[in-house]
Amino acid sequence: MAVGERPFPTMPSLEGVRLGTAMAGIKKPYRRDVVVIELPETSTVAGVFTRNAFCAAPVTVAKAHLKRTAETGDGPRYWLINTGNANAGTGEAGYQDALQSCATLARQAGVNDAAVLPFSTGVIGEPLPMAQLLDGIPEAFANRAGDSQAWQHAAEGILTTDTRPKGASVRVAIGEREVVINGIAKGSGMIRPDMATMLAFVVTDAVIEPSLLERLLRETVDRSFNCITVDSDTSTNDACMLAAAGTGARVESEAQIDIFRNALQRVMTELAQSIIRDGEGATKFVTLQVDQAQSRQEALDVAFTVAHSPLVKTALYASDANWGRILAAVGRAPVDAFDVSRVTIELGDVRLVEGGGRAKGYTEAAGSKVMAEDEITIRISLGRGDEAATVWTSDLSHDYVSINADYRS
Amino acid sequence: MAVGERPFPTMPSLEGVRLGTAMAGIKKPYRRDVVVIELPETSTVAGVFTRNAFCAAPVTVAKAHLKRTAETGDGPRYWLINTGNANAGTGEAGYQDALQSCATLARQAGVNDAAVLPFSTGVIGEPLPMAQLLDGIPEAFANRAGDSQAWQHAAEGILTTDTRPKGASVRVAIGEREVVINGIAKGSGMIRPDMATMLAFVVTDAVIEPSLLERLLRETVDRSFNCITVDSDTSTNDACMLAAAGTGARVESEAQIDIFRNALQRVMTELAQSIIRDGEGATKFVTLQVDQAQSRQEALDVAFTVAHSPLVKTALYASDANWGRILAAVGRAPVDAFDVSRVTIELGDVRLVEGGGRAKGYTEAAGSKVMAEDEITIRISLGRGDEAATVWTSDLSHDYVSINADYRS
Repeated sequence: MAVGERPFPTMPSLEGVRLGTAMAGIKKPYRRDVVVIELPETSTVAGVFTRNAFCAAPVTVAKAHLKRTAETGDGPRYWLINTGNANAGTGEAGYQDALQSCATLARQAGVNDAAVLPFSTGVIGEPLPMAQLLDGIPEAFANRAGDSQAWQHAAEGILTTDTRPKGASVRVAIGEREVVINGIAKGSGMIRPDMATMLAFVVTDAVIEPSLLERLLRETVDRSFNCITVDSDTSTNDACMLAAAGTGARVESEAQIDIFRNALQRVMTELAQSIIRDGEGATKFVTLQVDQAQSRQEALDVAFTVAHSPLVKTALYASDANWGRILAAVGRAPVDAFDVSRVTIELGDVRLVEGGGRAKGYTEAAGSKVMAEDEITIRISLGRGDEAATVWTSDLSHDYVSINADYRS
Repeated sequence: MAVGERPFPTMPSLEGVRLGTAMAGIKKPYRRDVVVIELPETSTVAGVFTRNAFCAAPVTVAKAHLKRTAETGDGPRYWLINTGNANAGTGEAGYQDALQSCATLARQAGVNDAAVLPFSTGVIGEPLPMAQLLDGIPEAFANRAGDSQAWQHAAEGILTTDTRPKGASVRVAIGEREVVINGIAKGSGMIRPDMATMLAFVVTDAVIEPSLLERLLRETVDRSFNCITVDSDTSTNDACMLAAAGTGARVESEAQIDIFRNALQRVMTELAQSIIRDGEGATKFVTLQVDQAQSRQEALDVAFTVAHSPLVKTALYASDANWGRILAAVGRAPVDAFDVSRVTIELGDVRLVEGGGRAKGYTEAAGSKVMAEDEITIRISLGRGDEAATVWTSDLSHDYVSINADYRS
């Protein structure tokens, strides 16, 4: 199940950027499960990773390789991704497997091992099927290409329980030149990113200094992937990577940075929202807008408390305008000296709550009409300040339970 | 659905304590929905209440009346409970309804209004059906009795989505006399009590000073109702009341207090666990023991993070020993400088995790055997200190979704 139609977009080619895939049979036969993304030598790369204390072996290796290439200036050239197995909770053996995967691709491509960053997604706690993966790497390397179909195949090659590939592309003028930003992502369950989502790979042809690239990545991830939740569970393998291929226009003045940041934010938000639209069992796409908060963190706390409430999520699934559950969730959010008489809650354009209770003039019919939609906005105004935050989430359906009660079978 | 058989226990009579019920048709016909619990004049009473900022009108009134009676020394004499409607999110009108309910019972019983504490449970945000409630109060008052059946009828009269009444009774010797503690509770969903569960009423015949009674209530609730979770949602109407009827032995020396506290803890824990066993859609009763923590709060944080994980809960429902999900949940708990290589995780007597990954010698068959049981213990040792905590929870099943997607229909 997924909310709305979202055909994969056309992705322009980026000079020097090529993507290859293989069907290596890591978990299932006849599906793309190994992806190689090649970046030109001119690239700068930034990444944000899960904060889960049990972070996966590939995350540890990717962070170490990213650090090493930053020191040597000999930037990362390859992102190597497998689906079907997360290589998480696999201890020292898993770490060695991640290193060996990088070495295999590095030898083939004629680069240092540290120029390869590994990523894995899939079941946690089982050994990485190395025979299959090592077979798949040369095949993926051999068929790499730069066209839109190659991007789509790569987007398919990183999926797990997702029902469709996720991509976004934006063009924006920087001075007299045009810059392109292409991104792909995967994720459907275990989605409450703490630094980034399950996996997202974004590439632009712009020229961007490493420290600026990292700042732009953190700023845009904070307002996209870090603002979505399917089920409050943070993955061991989250990573969001951003590469500036360095073949296009240079982004350095404040005005250029602003333009680029806005374009990058659009790509990040589109990818993050596409994960929610394809959330496990999702039948609704829900936007939670919290405003009039004392701080952005306070607004986020309220939004996530509502977004994680199983009772709100099941009411959304039932298209039931059970606003009492929203009120109860808001009321348990960690907010100091919370005066609920100042809170207003709106469902679409229908006022639900004011003065500590049901809004005057509210009718069940009006609430039910909004709830029947696939895309629903809940706006919560706290009456305490000027800060705001937006969080996107999905509902809790029978399919969510089925998918996760059957996942390993 | 509910885990295990739990027939309602035999409850000894307590001098001066009488319970009456009525079928007032507040939400459904032919079910007990109004309960009056009468306490003798010798009683002392303590209560803990929800911290939900949107607390219900009866909670506000009960706290105010409890305060007034503490000032006048003219202790509470009646607990008046209705099910079928929570009188929450009902603003000023709901507050007046709660006051009027108290006044009606007070007039009938010949006591001050403040001697009546009101409690409501059921759907949030709809006006309390006052005509039905006011009809039910005299009927419940008239048929009050002190025998075990009266306790069971009262336990039935406070249920909402619960599938069975919940009671616990313990006898304990204080010096040469025997003291009895009887308790009833309700709750099945919206269960993540922050002070107490949905509703619990506990009465002993002991003589206990008010300040000691309140301390004993807080201490035992902290290790019972505050350690359970079905779905992480804190109700607007939570309350746990404890009365010492003052007709039995006096509890005042340290030795007596210790004995009484242990007995009270047994009643509280039994009631709290009975809520989890009857959790909405529950097919498993899960005990989460976290030890070797730096603080009790840290242990509780880890335990609740695992207990709230939808992915752990669906794996429990599926009887799937998917220990990677437990590991991922532990890894995202809010623990500073978390060295996961020191963490061990055990499922029953089977070691799942050690050294940052799957334990040596672990087999899927061994894990699956434990997972097939109705009652499962997960023990997580953090390797950081000496503090511990235990939390009880249920699984996340299709029935949970069905119950909450259909609740209002």
